[in-house]
Amino acid sequence: MSIIIDGKAVSKKILEEIKLETENLQNKPCLAVIIAGNDAASKIYVNNKQKTAGYLGFESIVKELPEDISQNSLIEEVEKLNRDENVHAILVQLPLPAHIDSSKIIESIRPDKDVDCFHPYNTAKIALNMETTLFPCTPAGIMLLLKEYGISAEGKHAVIIGRSNIVGRPLSWLLLNNSATVTVCHSKTENLADFTKNADILISAAGKPEFVKKEMVKEGAVVIDVGITRDTDGKIKGDIDFERVKDKASYITPVPGGVGPMTICCLMKNTLELFKKYHLKT
Amino acid sequence: MSIIIDGKAVSKKILEEIKLETENLQNKPCLAVIIAGNDAASKIYVNNKQKTAGYLGFESIVKELPEDISQNSLIEEVEKLNRDENVHAILVQLPLPAHIDSSKIIESIRPDKDVDCFHPYNTAKIALNMETTLFPCTPAGIMLLLKEYGISAEGKHAVIIGRSNIVGRPLSWLLLNNSATVTVCHSKTENLADFTKNADILISAAGKPEFVKKEMVKEGAVVIDVGITRDTDGKIKGDIDFERVKDKASYITPVPGGVGPMTICCLMKNTLELFKKYHLKT
Repeated sequence: MSIIIDGKAVSKKILEEIKLETENLQNKPCLAVIIAGNDAASKIYVNNKQKTAGYLGFESIVKELPEDISQNSLIEEVEKLNRDENVHAILVQLPLPAHIDSSKIIESIRPDKDVDCFHPYNTAKIALNMETTLFPCTPAGIMLLLKEYGISAEGKHAVIIGRSNIVGRPLSWLLLNNSATVTVCHSKTENLADFTKNADILISAAGKPEFVKKEMVKEGAVVIDVGITRDTDGKIKGDIDFERVKDKASYITPVPGGVGPMTICCLMKNTLELFKKYHLKT
Repeated sequence: MSIIIDGKAVSKKILEEIKLETENLQNKPCLAVIIAGNDAASKIYVNNKQKTAGYLGFESIVKELPEDISQNSLIEEVEKLNRDENVHAILVQLPLPAHIDSSKIIESIRPDKDVDCFHPYNTAKIALNMETTLFPCTPAGIMLLLKEYGISAEGKHAVIIGRSNIVGRPLSWLLLNNSATVTVCHSKTENLADFTKNADILISAAGKPEFVKKEMVKEGAVVIDVGITRDTDGKIKGDIDFERVKDKASYITPVPGGVGPMTICCLMKNTLELFKKYHLKT
């Protein structure tokens, strides 16, 4: 009797709201994306972002840079966009070539154009529960899904599997800011099932196909799957053994069609947000 | 059979190391403290900090400002210290008068002089597990105590009671960075004992005298008490019911004499650290 959370539908709904709001704007939000090197997956992601931006009526710029670009030249490219008054949001597609220190590049983005919300200054505001309207895309997408389905985190035990800087850590802050009791598990956690079995809200972001089994999940839990792995047979799989877990969960996200579509949706939401802030300021 | 963690002794040992190192320095580290208003407790704290700095051979400056100072004037005072090449470490004593937005004042401190490690830029580095040598004083003091007593956090379940920006949150990041499985509990947590009973390392920073009872603690747990409250009879009490819990814990900190002395010790450690970074840079 579980409810399948439809990330595709929620994402679509929010994107349509953004599109409508954008139609009524005199100037248009502009998203600039930097991609360095020839990573095939990155090119697909960047292409999708550009297409979605275009659909919403945003301006968009893609700067394709060579694999062997120096760190300093890459920073210069970011700084050009920092100075460009027509650019409201800057995204540097990760991963960057191995010789580049990603954290240095992220720190070079102006915090008020940092659409991914990866700059230390922006992440700190969330970590310290300070007032902010900018949130990293995947964690923000998960919080939006909970909100859309009327699931409050307050007083619930939220267990996160994974401590990455993109999902696990910032999600733990958002859940804590929303008054959940939060446990972060990871590769060094002993007896993982002891934690997952006690989760009212279980979020897996481990990237291990179907490793969260039915017996690891509490009856009636809300189960959110951030994992996305392509199996040997080419099929996309989440972290959760969906077919077996779904009857035990009260709410569950599928893969694909759960958290995935929310990330790009929140990226566009952030772009509009930065645009509005910019025009409010000036 | 539990071991009482002697924070006073650990603090003394580290302060003597700092003193020795300072004696061999040509220039001396300089700590500047700003205090606004007439809060009696704050005056005692500031006085203690100044005395300890003096004992170590540090220079120190205390700027006493009136209760009714404007936010802008306070920021100007911080900026003077930011520019002063002889000042290596700046601390603004909290709490500030009610009409001042503390976060604005903290953000005005140069991150490379931010000795409390409260600036968003510095806290983010810890929250994101980036390379840094600066840590907020109380959480850093707790990690030092664990280290001194040979207690590794890796793979352990650490449960923190309290989600303040000064203790609970940054401590959760430090423990996570050290590969503990971390749970943060707080005022909205339901069935608190269900969490505390499963803690290998239990840290309470709630400020409620003796509310952590024996039955809430796991046999053999490491118990750290950050609480410090003055009882109606004038006696200082921690969060932990020390007399009853101490036989169940493997290690336990007393109040006073546990975490307390570590905070000022880490403040001095940070001052020296900022001084060394400054002279390394130039």
